[in-house]
Amino acid sequence: MEYGSETLASLIKLFARMPGIGSKTAQRLALHLLRSGEDEVAKLGQVILELKQRVGFCEACGSITESEMCAICTDPGRNREVMCVVEDPRDVLVLEKTGRYRGLYHVLHGVLSPVDGVGPEDLNLKRFEERVRTDAVKEVIVATNPTVEGDATALYIARALSASGCTVTRLARGLPMGGTLEFADDVTLARAIERREKL
Amino acid sequence: MEYGSETLASLIKLFARMPGIGSKTAQRLALHLLRSGEDEVAKLGQVILELKQRVGFCEACGSITESEMCAICTDPGRNREVMCVVEDPRDVLVLEKTGRYRGLYHVLHGVLSPVDGVGPEDLNLKRFEERVRTDAVKEVIVATNPTVEGDATALYIARALSASGCTVTRLARGLPMGGTLEFADDVTLARAIERREKL
Repeated sequence: MEYGSETLASLIKLFARMPGIGSKTAQRLALHLLRSGEDEVAKLGQVILELKQRVGFCEACGSITESEMCAICTDPGRNREVMCVVEDPRDVLVLEKTGRYRGLYHVLHGVLSPVDGVGPEDLNLKRFEERVRTDAVKEVIVATNPTVEGDATALYIARALSASGCTVTRLARGLPMGGTLEFADDVTLARAIERREKL
Repeated sequence: MEYGSETLASLIKLFARMPGIGSKTAQRLALHLLRSGEDEVAKLGQVILELKQRVGFCEACGSITESEMCAICTDPGRNREVMCVVEDPRDVLVLEKTGRYRGLYHVLHGVLSPVDGVGPEDLNLKRFEERVRTDAVKEVIVATNPTVEGDATALYIARALSASGCTVTRLARGLPMGGTLEFADDVTLARAIERREKL
């Protein structure tokens, strides 16, 4: 009875399993709930219980939805000839916020990472190749993160689609807007010089 | 439908209300649950629902317990003449871990902080004075944090007990063990010189 209560101890343990939550933060969160209003805590418990029943991933693109297909996949106004491949459902939200993209998405739910034992079969890639083939996609924009794993995944996708005849592009790299040269890292700066754009 | 699901959106909102959890972290936690096993998520929901029913605060000292009185208050082996006053139930765990204290505790559930509108009546002080009076406590160790608010609370307690005849002490201040002079702050160092101990 380290915490004076089994229930509290098991809540702290469950919180501490979540990403980025250490044991001190887990303690703080559990004690916060213990001091919060009964209604609020009951609501949180209820929503968590309902989560897995109600929410799932879109059958087509793999993003978050409460139906079989997500709102973007079923939107007749979206351009079905362009498909943007992202690592995570969060990336869909981020890209949608820009308001500059009107095509479809495909969420991989991860990136290729041999070190962590993540191979092509662990990602949502089979459904992706199927969609590109059957839906007559003309351009695939690979929007994986600009990391080693993201780049490896982008290359894998480009190779897998090399025979399909559709264009594969990826997001531009360079200096971030509003940043200063002083704080740009060497790799970014070197790339920005190499791929300089004509004014 | 910012997140493609009302349920997910409300979970993110509830997570973001917790201390130290911003909207990005809340998103990450909610998506983690969405990808976790059904059993684990159901268990978390269930524990949260049970939390407020099962766990409460000790009627005497205010620390965490699943009964009316906590394990420390009902332990006949504890020294009932010494009472240690702390801000938070977590502090009881921290002090117990040292294994060097065998008296009772009293949890204030906060500190005096006029800026945040916390006065003596908002703390667990009435029950404290009652306990000191009726339980023949001989020494009160004030273990509030070494902050402005913690010191103010310590002073308030010392004054409130000035007529009671019991000794009021507080935890020693000075250099932390294993630290170096180089990294000690000015206030700590000045105090450490002023209150130097005889070898």
